[in-house]
Amino acid sequence: MMEFLVEIEVNWPNDSDEELKQDLIRDEAIRAKELIEEGYIIRLWRIPGRWANVGLWRAKNASILHEALSSLPFFPWLDISVRPLAEHPSDPEKN
Amino acid sequence: MMEFLVEIEVNWPNDSDEELKQDLIRDEAIRAKELIEEGYIIRLWRIPGRWANVGLWRAKNASILHEALSSLPFFPWLDISVRPLAEHPSDPEKN
Amino acid sequence: MMEFLVEIEVNWPNDSDEELKQDLIRDEAIRAKELIEEGYIIRLWRIPGRWANVGLWRAKNASILHEALSSLPFFPWLDISVRPLAEHPSDPEKN
Amino acid sequence: MMEFLVEIEVNWPNDSDEELKQDLIRDEAIRAKELIEEGYIIRLWRIPGRWANVGLWRAKNASILHEALSSLPFFPWLDISVRPLAEHPSDPEKN
Amino acid sequence: MMEFLVEIEVNWPNDSDEELKQDLIRDEAIRAKELIEEGYIIRLWRIPGRWANVGLWRAKNASILHEALSSLPFFPWLDISVRPLAEHPSDPEKN
Amino acid sequence: MMEFLVEIEVNWPNDSDEELKQDLIRDEAIRAKELIEEGYIIRLWRIPGRWANVGLWRAKNASILHEALSSLPFFPWLDISVRPLAEHPSDPEKN
Amino acid sequence: MMEFLVEIEVNWPNDSDEELKQDLIRDEAIRAKELIEEGYIIRLWRIPGRWANVGLWRAKNASILHEALSSLPFFPWLDISVRPLAEHPSDPEKN
Amino acid sequence: MMEFLVEIEVNWPNDSDEELKQDLIRDEAIRAKELIEEGYIIRLWRIPGRWANVGLWRAKNASILHEALSSLPFFPWLDISVRPLAEHPSDPEKN
Amino acid sequence: MMEFLVEIEVNWPNDSDEELKQDLIRDEAIRAKELIEEGYIIRLWRIPGRWANVGLWRAKNASILHEALSSLPFFPWLDISVRPLAEHPSDPEKN
Amino acid sequence: MMEFLVEIEVNWPNDSDEELKQDLIRDEAIRAKELIEEGYIIRLWRIPGRWANVGLWRAKNASILHEALSSLPFFPWLDISVRPLAEHPSDPEKN
Repeated sequence: MMEFLVEIEVNWPNDSDEELKQDLIRDEAIRAKELIEEGYIIRLWRIPGRWANVGLWRAKNASILHEALSSLPFFPWLDISVRPLAEHPSDPEKN
Repeated sequence: MMEFLVEIEVNWPNDSDEELKQDLIRDEAIRAKELIEEGYIIRLWRIPGRWANVGLWRAKNASILHEALSSLPFFPWLDISVRPLAEHPSDPEKN
Repeated sequence: MMEFLVEIEVNWPNDSDEELKQDLIRDEAIRAKELIEEGYIIRLWRIPGRWANVGLWRAKNASILHEALSSLPFFPWLDISVRPLAEHPSDPEKN
Repeated sequence: MMEFLVEIEVNWPNDSDEELKQDLIRDEAIRAKELIEEGYIIRLWRIPGRWANVGLWRAKNASILHEALSSLPFFPWLDISVRPLAEHPSDPEKN
Repeated sequence: MMEFLVEIEVNWPNDSDEELKQDLIRDEAIRAKELIEEGYIIRLWRIPGRWANVGLWRAKNASILHEALSSLPFFPWLDISVRPLAEHPSDPEKN
Repeated sequence: MMEFLVEIEVNWPNDSDEELKQDLIRDEAIRAKELIEEGYIIRLWRIPGRWANVGLWRAKNASILHEALSSLPFFPWLDISVRPLAEHPSDPEKN
Repeated sequence: MMEFLVEIEVNWPNDSDEELKQDLIRDEAIRAKELIEEGYIIRLWRIPGRWANVGLWRAKNASILHEALSSLPFFPWLDISVRPLAEHPSDPEKN
Repeated sequence: MMEFLVEIEVNWPNDSDEELKQDLIRDEAIRAKELIEEGYIIRLWRIPGRWANVGLWRAKNASILHEALSSLPFFPWLDISVRPLAEHPSDPEKN
Repeated sequence: MMEFLVEIEVNWPNDSDEELKQDLIRDEAIRAKELIEEGYIIRLWRIPGRWANVGLWRAKNASILHEALSSLPFFPWLDISVRPLAEHPSDPEKN
Repeated sequence: MMEFLVEIEVNWPNDSDEELKQDLIRDEAIRAKELIEEGYIIRLWRIPGRWANVGLWRAKNASILHEALSSLPFFPWLDISVRPLAEHPSDPEKN
């Protein structure tokens, strides 16, 4: 298993359909819950002042991570950047 | 309590004293252990390929975080950037 | 309490509804006044030549700051960046 | 009078003379106190994790601000960036 | 009095109303002439290859400069950046 | 197994010991050969005009990749950036 | 023959015609297969989290590469960057 | 006479009128031919993978160059950057 | 004649010879005066907070400008960027 | 044959040996002349205000170009960036 630092920004056009937006927000919350239960999302933080988040994700490799990320209902509107993380000898979780 | 995403790069000149470097590495590990026990460092990852790490830090505010960061023996050689994190409603740890 | 340096840029499309814009400007001024009274906004400056401002904000942490920022009527059109500030021993206000 | 947002980073080489560094730190604190008393420095914050600060400065114009900044004992080692600030109608201090 | 280096880029959408564009160009030229007569604009250059200009502006402070800049008819379509200038001892105009 | 795109730049100070440099170049070639045999390095290209290369690396995860990268004799002088790669359905190697 | 590192990002507007998008995806896969058979595309990876890919392309020169790239059905929506690659003496494929 | 390195990117919206695009392409080729004959364009290269070019232009000064550039039929859709070039003592053309 | 916007930053190492620095400062002032008299430097401003200046220079072309710039005694320590300026129809000096 | 746009900046430390510098400058001119005669360098311009040049180079591919570039006596002090160029249908040289 490998951990990734994933930054997600939602680029939602303000003139878009409000109903679609609300549907997507509801579906996104459901999908996020599933991804948490399946062990993909370990931690999730909001970037203050933005419709954006930073998350700690876990997956066997980048291909499986991509599948999880692209399963998000908002995916076509997301600007996502992924950074690979290596284990640190002083990481509290490892000790 | 507030969480911060902290990225630390070590800018160690290659022509520096090797003994000093080894002393600092040993002291840094000791200080890191203390900061973990005191609850400042929650997670720590190495950035692959670099003498650098990303960490999840916790402190009451940025002033107290700065005290913790500047207590690192390597501090004068560190390039540190701090990003504030806000709680996310879907964060697994909050549920 | 913690202070933050917050930079806000308004990305308002010029072909948008003028009435909506005027409504939002009026509501924004009202909300700003409330945020000042509640102690969130300490100082506010216009960035010369831009529909943008820099502000000194105060909040217990980044989560509460985010709530305040996202309560701004213009929020969906705002590009916001938040920098955490630590106390400085020479800060006039502390002495 | 005009306000400026000034960001100052100290680029001190780690192999420099320690005594000179301590002398400069002491002189810098004295000069900072004078600049506060003379009304140049209004607020000062440390950038967490760095030997750097952000400050709110006040001066009649950029020429006089430059004189104040270049009077800092650490000036030759400082990387300084200055942003001009305009008054904002909602600034708490103006109301 | 203080001088500023002001860079202005016009972001005009190509699918906009041509008549409005011509009206704005005519009004902009008139307003520019007034700002010159009032002493705000000292010099103005076109950035080659772009619908953009660099200008030397003069104003008592950034607030008054902002008023002048935001009085330009094209203002909602302008991307403006302002740099403060300090006097130089070797400036030909000062000698 | 996972693939990574790794970019490596050698920051060798021109006033360094020439003998050390030649020793490191020889050791680096030997270590590179081993990493190829162990299946870490799949492809390697020189960036034209620079003492730098781009490589396609393969490892089980970022931690093991970091071990391989930090085993390079030149490691203390290397500026390395690592990008994670996911499988593409049209990749010739997969078909 | 020369190798190039090509990064391709698809900038598809979310409000575009869904049928056109599906047609283009199907045509793109067919054209990609042809470019593989003709020896242009050697390797192809998805950038995790994005509708984007990095590829190793081979062509006699940049002019012929451009012809291949601009033959992609999605070309008008693609943001493409091309980096030239030189042979490395330690490249596994050369030994 | 002076030489300039000019980089031109065409920002053509994909949902624009196709007939207008074809007309502009035809007119652009005609205007380019004229600019070549008048001695403005010395060399022209396509940036591989992009609807963009780099060119070596010659003009008496930046004002005359701007006139030539803004005479291009595609000008309102062009993102142009101009770099001034000075003579080099080893330039083959000068010897 | 053509005008250029020239930005000059002095990269003087703090551990350099103080006498050499004072000599260069004196020589630089003398050379600057000559360049003013010869019509190269039209205006000169200090960038507040930095050992740097922005200047309006005039020369027949970039080659002659380069000769003037490289005649500055501090030239080996200068980081210089040159932007070409075109005439603007509203420039006060042209009317 | 393929053309490349090559930008070269000389990073020469001011405290280096002056004799070595003069030797390298002389050798560089000789090597440049050879590269011109061998058809590698087609055009060469100085970047005004910098010890840097932009050049039009020609080589069969990036590997051969790298050999030519790394044969420059100043190579260890050069910061070089290479951009591949494709033929343009309107290039004067092709018609």
